[in-house]
Amino acid sequence: MKGSGPAAPAGREMALAKSQTAAVARVMQGVVAMRRQVEKELSATSGRAPTLEALGITNVTEVRERDPSAVMRAIEELFADAADSILRGQGLHFEVPNRTATNQLYVPELDRIVLKSKTSTRSFDSTAQVRKTAIMTRVMEMLHQVLRRNIHTTKRDLFYADVKLFRSQDESDAVLDDVACVIGCTRTSLHVVASEKGVVVGRVQFREDGDLIDCTRMGVGGKAIPPFIDKISDFRSDAEFILLVEKDAAFMRLAEDRFYNKYPCIIITAKGQPDVATRLFLRKCRDDLKLPVLGLVDADPYGLKILSVYMSGSKTMSYDSASLTTSDIKWLGVRPSDLDKYNIPEQCRLPMKASDIKYGKALLEEDFVRRNPKWYAELEAMLSSKVKAEIQALSSYGFQYLTETYLPRKLKERDWI
Amino acid sequence: MKGSGPAAPAGREMALAKSQTAAVARVMQGVVAMRRQVEKELSATSGRAPTLEALGITNVTEVRERDPSAVMRAIEELFADAADSILRGQGLHFEVPNRTATNQLYVPELDRIVLKSKTSTRSFDSTAQVRKTAIMTRVMEMLHQVLRRNIHTTKRDLFYADVKLFRSQDESDAVLDDVACVIGCTRTSLHVVASEKGVVVGRVQFREDGDLIDCTRMGVGGKAIPPFIDKISDFRSDAEFILLVEKDAAFMRLAEDRFYNKYPCIIITAKGQPDVATRLFLRKCRDDLKLPVLGLVDADPYGLKILSVYMSGSKTMSYDSASLTTSDIKWLGVRPSDLDKYNIPEQCRLPMKASDIKYGKALLEEDFVRRNPKWYAELEAMLSSKVKAEIQALSSYGFQYLTETYLPRKLKERDWI
Repeated sequence: MKGSGPAAPAGREMALAKSQTAAVARVMQGVVAMRRQVEKELSATSGRAPTLEALGITNVTEVRERDPSAVMRAIEELFADAADSILRGQGLHFEVPNRTATNQLYVPELDRIVLKSKTSTRSFDSTAQVRKTAIMTRVMEMLHQVLRRNIHTTKRDLFYADVKLFRSQDESDAVLDDVACVIGCTRTSLHVVASEKGVVVGRVQFREDGDLIDCTRMGVGGKAIPPFIDKISDFRSDAEFILLVEKDAAFMRLAEDRFYNKYPCIIITAKGQPDVATRLFLRKCRDDLKLPVLGLVDADPYGLKILSVYMSGSKTMSYDSASLTTSDIKWLGVRPSDLDKYNIPEQCRLPMKASDIKYGKALLEEDFVRRNPKWYAELEAMLSSKVKAEIQALSSYGFQYLTETYLPRKLKERDWI
Repeated sequence: MKGSGPAAPAGREMALAKSQTAAVARVMQGVVAMRRQVEKELSATSGRAPTLEALGITNVTEVRERDPSAVMRAIEELFADAADSILRGQGLHFEVPNRTATNQLYVPELDRIVLKSKTSTRSFDSTAQVRKTAIMTRVMEMLHQVLRRNIHTTKRDLFYADVKLFRSQDESDAVLDDVACVIGCTRTSLHVVASEKGVVVGRVQFREDGDLIDCTRMGVGGKAIPPFIDKISDFRSDAEFILLVEKDAAFMRLAEDRFYNKYPCIIITAKGQPDVATRLFLRKCRDDLKLPVLGLVDADPYGLKILSVYMSGSKTMSYDSASLTTSDIKWLGVRPSDLDKYNIPEQCRLPMKASDIKYGKALLEEDFVRRNPKWYAELEAMLSSKVKAEIQALSSYGFQYLTETYLPRKLKERDWI
């Protein structure tokens, strides 16, 4: 290099970099404030979460994550009790907590459902229950094997492990929830997992089965979210928020543009309907890192439904919803009101089908919509306009409009509800 | 440490480790031999692949991977020609190669399909073609934008970029193949990609958009295969084979047990029907590393069909099959003959439905089955027994039977066809 020549451009570059950083900081101000708020709230609750005992709630079955040795011990105790009962001449039977709605108790202080004391006896002596009792015994034996080896399995594998007894997969599946409730642990704690579908990319590191995973270095395809949440630990991140994306195509755009480099965030998608593994991952990631979650979904009733599955879960699984649900997801977009605000061309707005409208009306009655007046208003506006739109509609302003204009403006204007 | 005490156990451990290594080496012998053979064959063809010219084949359109600048240049030339034609008073028109079967030529020396010289003129002057010509012009303009920015997009985004003109996504999708054939490049070279679904884990490293991806350190969930194959380069591996798995559950078992640590391999799954990204990845991985591919699928007609999609592709995409297909995949299992050989219990064998049998009979007529007498015999046996089985049926001998017994025995006995 010669003389002071290169100094000027270097100075200019630095000034440019500085002004860009300042611009990003301005965009991020609102998110940073929210992140601090979320951190404070989550620290407060996790610091002094009341116990059921302290709340004066007794005689309930609490369902929570338990480690393999605790679950194994519980199975061993159940079998010891069963052997005792047989030796006393009282036969083989199990007490199974009732999972119906009337036996569930919502504890608002914990934001969790626990099972009340109603149980039913499943007895090997009863003609009606002999098969189910045998199946339950066999399933617990197999789960014990799985846990002792510290491996994981699927419902399908479990079924095939004794087809002769189970006959159909429904029969082995059905007792899994029973076993979980008897032991007071989540399905995941039984090491029976569903298939994976989700992907994550962005400003987060974690350990997965010992391997250090750095999601800023996962190329454009991202890291597949594993089906075993218990193998994930040691989350680290300098992100300000989690961006939860409904669809693959939007995820692809965000990943290719490395959106997270400029706007520090973690990007997660389940590629459509949320699967259990992605929901567990989101919850754990949010809790451990204490980050706000912003949702980017289609502006149609199904987009809203997807947010609700992350937030409230599906009804049949409610007894172990604690580890599956992430409350307080903010609806960032695409919202019905965005269509006018961002001037989405008429041609990109699609007429709602009769089934969309019917579904949307049903959502208006649901708790997660009713308790958020802004959500309610957006959904009402959608239903009265009879118009919906996909995230992709933003492409009418250019393929990178999503990452370069729409999202930065949303963040800057703190435009989430 | 004191005296020679610890020496004995250390010696014993070392002896054990040695004998285990020797056992693995014995299991791997056949695969290693096959890998060397494949390496030799692929090196031979890639070293002196004949050109079309050398084969005396002229007047054809060759469809192959081209880099963004070449595709951009081709679009610019097409537009310059179109402008010329308009200025000469001959209007706007494009010559589009015909993609019908009669205009395709299979070149066995290259194992590739090329398009013969039949073209049709798409003219803006014709009432019947005015819309299609306009759409094609617009799509090429948009592709040029995408390529200039060196980003990727999806069919859906492309559609939304000008809904007013395209009206329905079918219309913008339809011209994509035309544009690819006019330019003589693959769909992937146009940077229009499908969503990703596949996952990879095991003994392979590569660069993805600059990031170094080490698939031995991807935990139990594996690395999501990205939709952009052109961002992947620098494959490195000490694997002896690629294990192509139909289903997620089997992939999960292999990943959790880190099967690849003991038996050096790369494990790939598309979780069911193979998507374009996974097929491109498999082909590139196989070619760059020169490895044999062993398929692990359900013992039913759909398992076989899945292997065939990897091998021959789907019929509509045949003009750019070269980069999508991986010939010579070996059928490792689960094969109909395995059911008796491995004593799969009767209860794990499922009766074939009428639709299975119909589908299986149709497969008997297909080239990829007919040219492999052993495949033909297996499929015939399946159809006459009217019995099918899933990979999971192996779980009847224990959840890790697949990784600890079935696959090692298969490899040791060189039991692939």
